[in-house]
Amino acid sequence: MNLSDEYEPETYGTLGTDTFRVFFKRKLPNASDPDSAQIYISPFHDIPIYSELAPNIHRMIVRMPRWSSERMEICKTEPFNPIRQDSSRQLLRYYDNIFPYHGVLWNCGSFPQTWEMLSYMHPDFKDLKGDNGLLDVLEIGSRIHKTGTVLDVKILGAIVLIDQDHLDWKIFAIDINDPLASKIDNIVGIEEHMPGLLDSTLDFFRFYKTSMGHLPITFGYGKIFLDKQIALDTIVGSHAAWKKLIKNEVPIKQSKDTADFKLFNTQCLESNREYLRNSKEAEALIENLKMLVTNRPIESMAQPPSIQQIERVIYLNKRLILNNLSKAEEQEKLKKEIEIKKEQTYFDNLGKFLQDNFYTLVLPASLLSVALYFSTKKSIFVKV
Amino acid sequence: MNLSDEYEPETYGTLGTDTFRVFFKRKLPNASDPDSAQIYISPFHDIPIYSELAPNIHRMIVRMPRWSSERMEICKTEPFNPIRQDSSRQLLRYYDNIFPYHGVLWNCGSFPQTWEMLSYMHPDFKDLKGDNGLLDVLEIGSRIHKTGTVLDVKILGAIVLIDQDHLDWKIFAIDINDPLASKIDNIVGIEEHMPGLLDSTLDFFRFYKTSMGHLPITFGYGKIFLDKQIALDTIVGSHAAWKKLIKNEVPIKQSKDTADFKLFNTQCLESNREYLRNSKEAEALIENLKMLVTNRPIESMAQPPSIQQIERVIYLNKRLILNNLSKAEEQEKLKKEIEIKKEQTYFDNLGKFLQDNFYTLVLPASLLSVALYFSTKKSIFVKV
Repeated sequence: MNLSDEYEPETYGTLGTDTFRVFFKRKLPNASDPDSAQIYISPFHDIPIYSELAPNIHRMIVRMPRWSSERMEICKTEPFNPIRQDSSRQLLRYYDNIFPYHGVLWNCGSFPQTWEMLSYMHPDFKDLKGDNGLLDVLEIGSRIHKTGTVLDVKILGAIVLIDQDHLDWKIFAIDINDPLASKIDNIVGIEEHMPGLLDSTLDFFRFYKTSMGHLPITFGYGKIFLDKQIALDTIVGSHAAWKKLIKNEVPIKQSKDTADFKLFNTQCLESNREYLRNSKEAEALIENLKMLVTNRPIESMAQPPSIQQIERVIYLNKRLILNNLSKAEEQEKLKKEIEIKKEQTYFDNLGKFLQDNFYTLVLPASLLSVALYFSTKKSIFVKV
Repeated sequence: MNLSDEYEPETYGTLGTDTFRVFFKRKLPNASDPDSAQIYISPFHDIPIYSELAPNIHRMIVRMPRWSSERMEICKTEPFNPIRQDSSRQLLRYYDNIFPYHGVLWNCGSFPQTWEMLSYMHPDFKDLKGDNGLLDVLEIGSRIHKTGTVLDVKILGAIVLIDQDHLDWKIFAIDINDPLASKIDNIVGIEEHMPGLLDSTLDFFRFYKTSMGHLPITFGYGKIFLDKQIALDTIVGSHAAWKKLIKNEVPIKQSKDTADFKLFNTQCLESNREYLRNSKEAEALIENLKMLVTNRPIESMAQPPSIQQIERVIYLNKRLILNNLSKAEEQEKLKKEIEIKKEQTYFDNLGKFLQDNFYTLVLPASLLSVALYFSTKKSIFVKV
């Protein structure tokens, strides 16, 4: 019996279309009426990230099974926050299969009850923002876990992606039921038992947006692979941020970032009373959403890209990309140096001009200025 | 309209069980009776590898779609040679997912009308055998093709695996409808348009049997990547070998290797008359096989391994494996050198002994031998 066995995903609609949703239910073990033995919950707010029974275990929600490529997100803006496929410009989003990888290398998911504040200011990255989502987790165990599975995991370490102007944390964790879970405690353990996984994880994220024309991702914190304690601290921080959200204590200047978040829940102990719904109300909200999702006009639904695009493999010349990047960086540096030189030349020339004309221009002008200054001061004194 | 569109797979049974089969049909475009518009064919014997319409196009039969891991084979020993999952010791066989790969990197298949003779003697590898199967092909195009698809492909090059005592050719080819088919002509073109694919292909095959305790595979022919002409010659050779098979002209000493091959066909022009079947006979044979496959006692069916075993990722320390291999090779070499030295020492000692005792032992013994010889000869002469 695992702590997370009481949670159950309910799949709705068709995978690979804009109707697909995964809702969540909790089994109530002591319910007398079998009809009310399950209650709808929000995976964002209702699943406790920590368990009082086992302080070293965290809960995660699987969004994308290993080797899948549909970009699944916990929807912050729909009631009870179902999982749905992300879309952009009316197209459902997929991860490109960047050779040699097929989809994602891990079971990707989120920690419940976390929030990466958009305005979060990390002491080391003051100009970088959070991504306004739940905290991401990469589960590295051997099994493939379906979208919507709630897992008990052990935290191992982290990396932090610097994606343009925001920070994107990825926490490494392993299913506590994996045969290797008792043997792997940290980043060093991952490399020992799964040689190549850490390098390939960096390789995956470094290039995963270049096929869409973005620059390669860089990694923060100098060391790149960050050990358990930093991962745990990051979880604590984003859980604290979520608490403000669910207690309705988000500062006003941040409240526009979360204006369209849906905070409804049925079971969350920390929740502000206004977000709490009973089981009938939750069911009504979800039934209503299902109707909306299915009965929308087709032109408002995001469409899947062609099967050719979903299936294709992207072969990148990674060395060339990094080489071009470093060339671009060099040119940028060179450009800056030339500008600095230009400025220096300007000041050098000015200095030389002033030196050359010291007696004919600078000295007389200075004397004149001093004379004018004192004459003004005098007049002030006179006035006072 | 592609040349291969007239072929159609018919899936039977359940994927991932020992009941799974893919049979093949050919559409007859000019059939007057719609009921007889399709005829069962053998993918091994009835699909012409070459087309008279387009001399540069070869036909292939897809066995394993890219990213799948079920080891599918064209069954040489069942009538009309359906595709089925290979098994060993009552277990269905899968490719291990060796990190970072998921299943196979290409659409894997076979060339119809080819046979890699078990006793085939390649001029460069006289002590290595063929693998007694159809010639393998790796289709590197962007689309995923289902098991049983018949494709028109363009030949690009080859590698040859040396797997213990036999040669295993893999021909590189690309679907002629792939967007890159017109741009890639050879091995150099693969590296140019799909950087990394050739290296990963070697990496895949080098280690794909090490997770089962075998030594890493080595590659033949010195150059490793063999260009188009060698690939085409190999196809010609194995097609010629198949012709002997279907004409019933296999030499007697090889006939035990093919004793259980089923050579039934309905359309093969080269076929010996005894293997030809009409459409009703073919249907009866296939219906009979289907019955047998489904109604076998369960203990005679190969079983799938556990889902844990199918899903798992194998992380190999490849450097360590190669390092241990080269250590083992060194020790083997050292052992041989020591043996040679021992032999040399033995002969050296013998020589020294004979030299030291030349007058006391060797010379008298030699003289005695010569004397005995002539005395024997004499007696023979006397007898005659």
